[in-house]
Amino acid sequence: MAFRYPGGKKYVKSEHQKMPAASNRFANRGMSLEHDLNETNKHYNATGQAVIHKKPTPVQIVNVDYPKRSAAKITEAYFKQPSTTDYNGIYRGNYIDFEAKETKNKTSFPFGNIHPHQVDHMQQVLYHGGLSFLIIRFSILDQTYLYDASHFIWWYKKQSHRKSIPKQHIEENGHLLETKYAPRIDYLEIVDTIYLA
Amino acid sequence: MAFRYPGGKKYVKSEHQKMPAASNRFANRGMSLEHDLNETNKHYNATGQAVIHKKPTPVQIVNVDYPKRSAAKITEAYFKQPSTTDYNGIYRGNYIDFEAKETKNKTSFPFGNIHPHQVDHMQQVLYHGGLSFLIIRFSILDQTYLYDASHFIWWYKKQSHRKSIPKQHIEENGHLLETKYAPRIDYLEIVDTIYLA
Repeated sequence: MAFRYPGGKKYVKSEHQKMPAASNRFANRGMSLEHDLNETNKHYNATGQAVIHKKPTPVQIVNVDYPKRSAAKITEAYFKQPSTTDYNGIYRGNYIDFEAKETKNKTSFPFGNIHPHQVDHMQQVLYHGGLSFLIIRFSILDQTYLYDASHFIWWYKKQSHRKSIPKQHIEENGHLLETKYAPRIDYLEIVDTIYLA
Repeated sequence: MAFRYPGGKKYVKSEHQKMPAASNRFANRGMSLEHDLNETNKHYNATGQAVIHKKPTPVQIVNVDYPKRSAAKITEAYFKQPSTTDYNGIYRGNYIDFEAKETKNKTSFPFGNIHPHQVDHMQQVLYHGGLSFLIIRFSILDQTYLYDASHFIWWYKKQSHRKSIPKQHIEENGHLLETKYAPRIDYLEIVDTIYLA
């Protein structure tokens, strides 16, 4: 289920707001990346490993009704473009910040998945000494990578004649994340290895 | 303008979503704390001092319309209780996390302003080595304090027979923040002094 943004962008309803449709092509391959990351973050939180949360979807609220005996109801609102990445928090004393994206492409990751504001944000996080990366899932291939923001920024800024990053570069410079039971996607294990070892 | 939460809590529309009403009692004392902090964070961001943002208001989206030639319109949604504090980011390599609240009380800060989830979150942030505090404005007195989360947690957990923190304790253990032109509320100056000196 996808909603149109003003610029023609699509909004996909959060997995925790719906159950997967029976007709979902990939239902047998598990839940969405967002769901997997929410479960993973809950696990990290419950085990005291880290405090990392997804930010709420930014919404511009225009009208609200106040029914007498029930909860306030928002009757008119619009999606806003996010000015930061979706996930942030603290791990082993470090500020951690990332964006998670799924693509149906098999050979590349399109830049269009990330807003310019988000790229600027990643650059600022790196400048201030935070850990910044993307978690990219190639959904048809069922492969999920942790990919450092500096690589992404390089492609985005220097290779602006392109519209995507070749998957081969992500394979070679990113880190494959296995899907497990709990935590679903143990990205902090990779963070330990590549940033904090 | 206040909206009712399911539990009878009130939601006050963000200042950046509206202009202050001419009838606003405190209009001559300047904008709301949220507005002041947004301006302050924009200033920090623009000057490269820190990357700190307010999280979007959490909303449960139930229904969306897709008009043919315009933006997707949310037609049914409800306010959700936040599970974290409202502001977080990175400053001088440190994870920074805080909640901002205004009260019309003159002698104490009521616990009811903070949800239990948010108190747990502050405790976790401290455990992981982050900087955690509250920015509390006594709006009628026009006084704004930075107040360390550990003090707040102590009152909240140990003094549960009370329903508020005496203002005197906040005066003695908190740090008064002056309102200036830019940045409006220079809380990082205090953070430098008390946490990073």
